[in-house]
Amino acid sequence: MTRSQRAPHRGTWSLRLAATSPRVILGDVDGNLQRVRVALQGAVARGAQLIVLPELATSGYLFADRDEASAASITRDHHGWADLASALPPGVVAVVGYAERDGMQLFNSAAVLTHGRRIGDYRKAHLWGAEAALFDRGPTAGALFETPLGRLGVAICYDNEFPEVPRRLALAGAEILALPVNWPLIARPDGEHPPETIQAMAAARSSRLATIIADRSGAERGVAWTGGTAVIDEDGWVAALPDESGIAIATLTLRSPGDKSLPPHNDLFGDRRPELY
Amino acid sequence: MTRSQRAPHRGTWSLRLAATSPRVILGDVDGNLQRVRVALQGAVARGAQLIVLPELATSGYLFADRDEASAASITRDHHGWADLASALPPGVVAVVGYAERDGMQLFNSAAVLTHGRRIGDYRKAHLWGAEAALFDRGPTAGALFETPLGRLGVAICYDNEFPEVPRRLALAGAEILALPVNWPLIARPDGEHPPETIQAMAAARSSRLATIIADRSGAERGVAWTGGTAVIDEDGWVAALPDESGIAIATLTLRSPGDKSLPPHNDLFGDRRPELY
Repeated sequence: MTRSQRAPHRGTWSLRLAATSPRVILGDVDGNLQRVRVALQGAVARGAQLIVLPELATSGYLFADRDEASAASITRDHHGWADLASALPPGVVAVVGYAERDGMQLFNSAAVLTHGRRIGDYRKAHLWGAEAALFDRGPTAGALFETPLGRLGVAICYDNEFPEVPRRLALAGAEILALPVNWPLIARPDGEHPPETIQAMAAARSSRLATIIADRSGAERGVAWTGGTAVIDEDGWVAALPDESGIAIATLTLRSPGDKSLPPHNDLFGDRRPELY
Repeated sequence: MTRSQRAPHRGTWSLRLAATSPRVILGDVDGNLQRVRVALQGAVARGAQLIVLPELATSGYLFADRDEASAASITRDHHGWADLASALPPGVVAVVGYAERDGMQLFNSAAVLTHGRRIGDYRKAHLWGAEAALFDRGPTAGALFETPLGRLGVAICYDNEFPEVPRRLALAGAEILALPVNWPLIARPDGEHPPETIQAMAAARSSRLATIIADRSGAERGVAWTGGTAVIDEDGWVAALPDESGIAIATLTLRSPGDKSLPPHNDLFGDRRPELY
């Protein structure tokens, strides 16, 4: 459903949201771009309007050093981007994690693409583990993009473990949050969601912000991934987990942008007391 | 274990933490105070060092109007406080929710007590539902208290659904968070924790802040309570739920106050980028 189909005021609208996790081979940029393209086509075929791919989906994650990361990095004018954008029908938006080279700098970035063009890029601000030896830090804590689907927030992995980030994006008008991640698997109690999922669920509920998480699965250089790919609805519940084809997809009913009301008395944003924080 | 038994630097310490939920009868202040006293004694007998009671444990919650709330409110010099404080051995701290009268003002408050004395009081800042017609808003978003167990953060119910609140308290040095609540039961998917618990788990993990939740159980004036009483450890996992006697109690191992390190590369607070928020 496009923006024009939204109810004009205090209504609801719906979006078909997907996260998909193709196989990623460390350093195989051309092969990864091809697999990302196939994954986008698969999601489009299932009616997805927003499609989120994992962090560093074009490069892999576990680089031994900056030279190796640099060799797997690409610029914003790499020929592969036009190819990916051409896979998207009008009105469809994709968020693809990649290793970005810009002169002497490297960033852990996400490209926001739509039919035939690039909307923009976000550069990860909070670097996890050894990333600080590989990448430069981005200049904003998450970012907002005006897309054919509405105002899209983008953050990458560890960014979202700082509650300031999804909150900041929501307060600035994010209608949905796209979250490419690479979550190394850690122990958790039986029956619990991954802890990073719990943080995303909480942030979604606090700000009524549906969140689309695309994680890796399998392993890379001995590190197992969590496989945390999920669609989280704006009440903070898991609406979809990956099916056998590795795609999590759901049609969510969303309240009108900016509607944070909790009738009859409350409002998630109006009840804030920013003068006290 | 008292503060003097802590490892001096980057070590761990342990605390026995309890949340307990005695029966509360709307408007029966004397009876409620007596039941709170018995609940404190029961937790003390099981070795609890910090004991958290629900929001409005001395008054009940579902007042029809401000007059009814006022009739069930007490001042800080009510005789019942000394009686409760006398039930606490040296070094033990209790947090008790109550309806506070101060001149013409009414607050949804929590008293912080220890052996034979009152440490302080917190007045709820974010009022839920019809509370705004009953209570005045407190002047701080959560509060910190220096106690024999360390620096204790206190917030009440809806306060903690604003991620700014636990984050602010943790950044200001809270070592543990006491959270008296009255959570009306809402629907949730099978197998999920209550949504407010998920928010507390996420906040605990984000800031390494163990959180002790004391909720009501049963029902009052037709509103069923969630029964969300729980001890959440500093990694955000549920360490204890209520046993058959209605007490959730666990001995938690805590890292040294202020230690937010995630070796070898990260630090939950040091990795923040406050210049970007």
